[in-house]
Amino acid sequence: MKAKANDELVFLPLGGSGEIGMNLNAYGYGPPEERQWIIVDIGVTFGREDSTLGVDLILPDPTYLEGETILGIVLTHAHEDHIGALAWLWPRLKAPVFATPFTAILVREKLRERGLLDKVKLTEIPLKGGLTLGPFDIEYITLTHSIPEPNGLAIRTPLGLVYHTGDWKIDPDPLIGELTDDAKLRAMAEEGVLAMVCDSTNVFVEGTSGSEADVREKLTQVVGKCAGRVAVTAFASNVARVESALFAARASGRTPCLVGRSMHRIYGAAQAVGLLQDTPRVINEEEAAGLDPAKVLYLCTGSQGEPRAALTRIARGDFRNVSLKQGDTVIFSSRVIPGNEMAIHALYNAFLERGVELITADDQPVHVSGHPARDELRQMYAWARPRIAIPVHGERRHILEHVKLARELQVPEALAPNNGDLIRLAPGPAAVVDEVPSGRLYVDGGVLIEAEDDALKDRKRLAAEGAVNVSLAVSAKNAILAGPNVTVRGLSMSDDEEFELAVEDLERTAEAAWAKLSHAERGEDETVEATLVRAVRKAADRLWKKKPLVDVSVLRL
Amino acid sequence: MKAKANDELVFLPLGGSGEIGMNLNAYGYGPPEERQWIIVDIGVTFGREDSTLGVDLILPDPTYLEGETILGIVLTHAHEDHIGALAWLWPRLKAPVFATPFTAILVREKLRERGLLDKVKLTEIPLKGGLTLGPFDIEYITLTHSIPEPNGLAIRTPLGLVYHTGDWKIDPDPLIGELTDDAKLRAMAEEGVLAMVCDSTNVFVEGTSGSEADVREKLTQVVGKCAGRVAVTAFASNVARVESALFAARASGRTPCLVGRSMHRIYGAAQAVGLLQDTPRVINEEEAAGLDPAKVLYLCTGSQGEPRAALTRIARGDFRNVSLKQGDTVIFSSRVIPGNEMAIHALYNAFLERGVELITADDQPVHVSGHPARDELRQMYAWARPRIAIPVHGERRHILEHVKLARELQVPEALAPNNGDLIRLAPGPAAVVDEVPSGRLYVDGGVLIEAEDDALKDRKRLAAEGAVNVSLAVSAKNAILAGPNVTVRGLSMSDDEEFELAVEDLERTAEAAWAKLSHAERGEDETVEATLVRAVRKAADRLWKKKPLVDVSVLRL
Repeated sequence: MKAKANDELVFLPLGGSGEIGMNLNAYGYGPPEERQWIIVDIGVTFGREDSTLGVDLILPDPTYLEGETILGIVLTHAHEDHIGALAWLWPRLKAPVFATPFTAILVREKLRERGLLDKVKLTEIPLKGGLTLGPFDIEYITLTHSIPEPNGLAIRTPLGLVYHTGDWKIDPDPLIGELTDDAKLRAMAEEGVLAMVCDSTNVFVEGTSGSEADVREKLTQVVGKCAGRVAVTAFASNVARVESALFAARASGRTPCLVGRSMHRIYGAAQAVGLLQDTPRVINEEEAAGLDPAKVLYLCTGSQGEPRAALTRIARGDFRNVSLKQGDTVIFSSRVIPGNEMAIHALYNAFLERGVELITADDQPVHVSGHPARDELRQMYAWARPRIAIPVHGERRHILEHVKLARELQVPEALAPNNGDLIRLAPGPAAVVDEVPSGRLYVDGGVLIEAEDDALKDRKRLAAEGAVNVSLAVSAKNAILAGPNVTVRGLSMSDDEEFELAVEDLERTAEAAWAKLSHAERGEDETVEATLVRAVRKAADRLWKKKPLVDVSVLRL
Repeated sequence: MKAKANDELVFLPLGGSGEIGMNLNAYGYGPPEERQWIIVDIGVTFGREDSTLGVDLILPDPTYLEGETILGIVLTHAHEDHIGALAWLWPRLKAPVFATPFTAILVREKLRERGLLDKVKLTEIPLKGGLTLGPFDIEYITLTHSIPEPNGLAIRTPLGLVYHTGDWKIDPDPLIGELTDDAKLRAMAEEGVLAMVCDSTNVFVEGTSGSEADVREKLTQVVGKCAGRVAVTAFASNVARVESALFAARASGRTPCLVGRSMHRIYGAAQAVGLLQDTPRVINEEEAAGLDPAKVLYLCTGSQGEPRAALTRIARGDFRNVSLKQGDTVIFSSRVIPGNEMAIHALYNAFLERGVELITADDQPVHVSGHPARDELRQMYAWARPRIAIPVHGERRHILEHVKLARELQVPEALAPNNGDLIRLAPGPAAVVDEVPSGRLYVDGGVLIEAEDDALKDRKRLAAEGAVNVSLAVSAKNAILAGPNVTVRGLSMSDDEEFELAVEDLERTAEAAWAKLSHAERGEDETVEATLVRAVRKAADRLWKKKPLVDVSVLRL
């Protein structure tokens, strides 16, 4: 296929550029009016119990792409920030999906949960395989990361080759999966790489990220020295790490026990693609509880102090059949994800209070990152030698620092994209040619809503200021027949009597505000509501120094 | 004064032991039934906009002490976590207050704000001075910290000398105030120190904390190399640091401009006690805006990314007369307080997006902590040689680590107190002899409430699940005359029509639930409310997968 005169190749990040998580990248080809798109990855970010007002999942808003021609959704690997939004957003995008086998298993689970398994065409692509979608010729490139089957994508178009790295590191001994396919990367450089769209997560980290093999050795040593029960916590999706913990258990004569739903889920997915075949048998919590403490190793979810995760509940003494105490050890084979510091410290405090010993990556090298540190980034640029560097996957500070690094490395062009920047890669020079709508969607309970929805502003207000409800029954002649009744929620006084007086005060306030209305005004619901709301809110401010959400309900007889 | 047969000396932490901030320590003397108390420090912790549901200030609950004989409240220094609760809790404690001059100025401001200035007897104690309160003979010991006039207290009783360190470091050149009075500490050791109650904040930090003098030199260098506008952000209460920034301005030919309310407040307090006399004249924002960028240095509050602080508003481009852009520099002469990581990173991102250069303590040594690192702790134990170590001022992990360190240093006894532990120091051995009620109070708007108040549970629920209000007017014959009307707050649907259908669904649900009630049940408000609440909540769960707070208001005619 050859490029036509008006053809353009564009890159459009809709998630993950300027924020952590929820990666959604789109590549468009063709004349502007007839662009055909592929989407690369479609992930989520998780809400935090204490700050996201009950929102569990945060998704990129794909609205801009909804009317467009989408040839396919191509997934690089199975981390939630790359696949987690698929089942939620697919009904709006309705494109075929492509993934390697391990990723496909986890994607299928998600589709099944949302009742989409029969609707979505999911094609498995073998490792190092490829596919063609219209003008896009896509090849999976084997990389290393902290999950099985991490892939970069070589996306060939009539206007040039884009190398989309996905998430990666250069692990000299990843334990599971092959080494980084640097021969392929060098060959691509010879062919000519127009642009590299690259992971920025660890751009502030000097040196290299280290190897899973080193962690395995260290974990084995550390577990070997423990006396009582041992719990290792790690991300379940890091199957090499899970295998390391299982091997460390065997080496120290301990029987492993998996704790936590996602640990079981990923363990099953890994076995289904032929991984974790030579690991020792795992037992359940009940069996483990019967064993000599020195003969058990728990492998737990919850390294980030998530409130409902296994480890948090164990720390609280609230997990059936697993209890840790003086003489036992918890090994955090994990890092502290920014924003989780307080939750993780609370977990540390709770375990220490029980006399449980803690070993974290600060004490011993029991963790390595899955993302490239600066030396690895330098190596990747040396291999791929792109003409344009486009850092993604990071906060603004990461992306800007990555641009600086790319310029130091003499990449001819480097752009720092924001979500919604439509970047023309070819014909060059690369430039932001448009800004399209982008944003966030929230999974709120069972409903998908926009981040700017008034309901969320109301919830923020309710959280800080509380709620007051006023109801009154009014006759056809505009006389009050009952009420105003006032209900106050989320506000208190130092004693109950004072609180009752405050509620009565609000009722009198509503009555007085009504009294000041003319007969005609009393007949207009909106006027009555606005007047009473204003009066009651003012009274609440006087009583509590708060501005609650006030609602007035006028029942007309 | 001599000890009588039944006399005991006890220590009771009610805040700050097992948590950061809100220090409240009490010492009791006498037979258990006739104890006389002194309170040492009475501080707050600040709420966080995104996680404390609109609560601004968190206070220790002093209820246990309210009926007791309190001889005085003795303040070590003026940081908010040591004095911030005084004006809120004094009405419950009503004891005379003692503080050194700088601290006294800031305390008076707080008392004035709460209308207590005339009621509270506040006595100024000179540096190195002392006071006697019943059996307690108290001497102020000069230490070094990150605020003027930091003091330890030597508390002599007939049963022994307790050394309460307050907050401290060993700064070999603190710039403001005298050096650590180690001669006095050594003399106390000769006299015999029964117990040392000591700061644990930096027990995980090896080495020493460094000196304000080093920061001054570095700040001067760094500012000297800046081209455009410079903004330095630091805690206003660190007057030595403020002076350093003012001197750095002068050395580089810049005129300083103070930005932020607390910067002005502390600047005034410092000048009132004779500090900051030789510093350059400061100008206001309007004047500064008119100067050549290379001639200005802003000294700002907001190093922690506080949403309403000067620096955050400047980063948003939302601060009158102060704007920073490409070519300007912000110097964070501060640390990242745990829990503020995300807010501070957001601040970094916003400045970087504007092209503003950032210099933080990660890049250059432009900050030192005010708390002792491990070598300083070792030195303090060597000076004071206490028989009992009681670490306070830290999370549980800090306090437990500090106990470990004290044991390594061969302190004969070491206890890890929790808030509410009543610890008998003498006659020995030291032991927790009782657990008394302790907890947190919240300043919520203008009201002081308990942390366990149902109103806060409701707010948490409202934040995550939203609210539904149902009102209906009912005749004397138990017929519905109007309604049920339903108001939904904090819940949404992906489109307005769906939302309206959901509200109608809830109205029908309420009506159907009413229809199932017997005539007699319809006459009982509680039954009607409970039935409708249950039905509506269930419907909400079906519609949204949420469990909103449902209130039903029955208006009887």
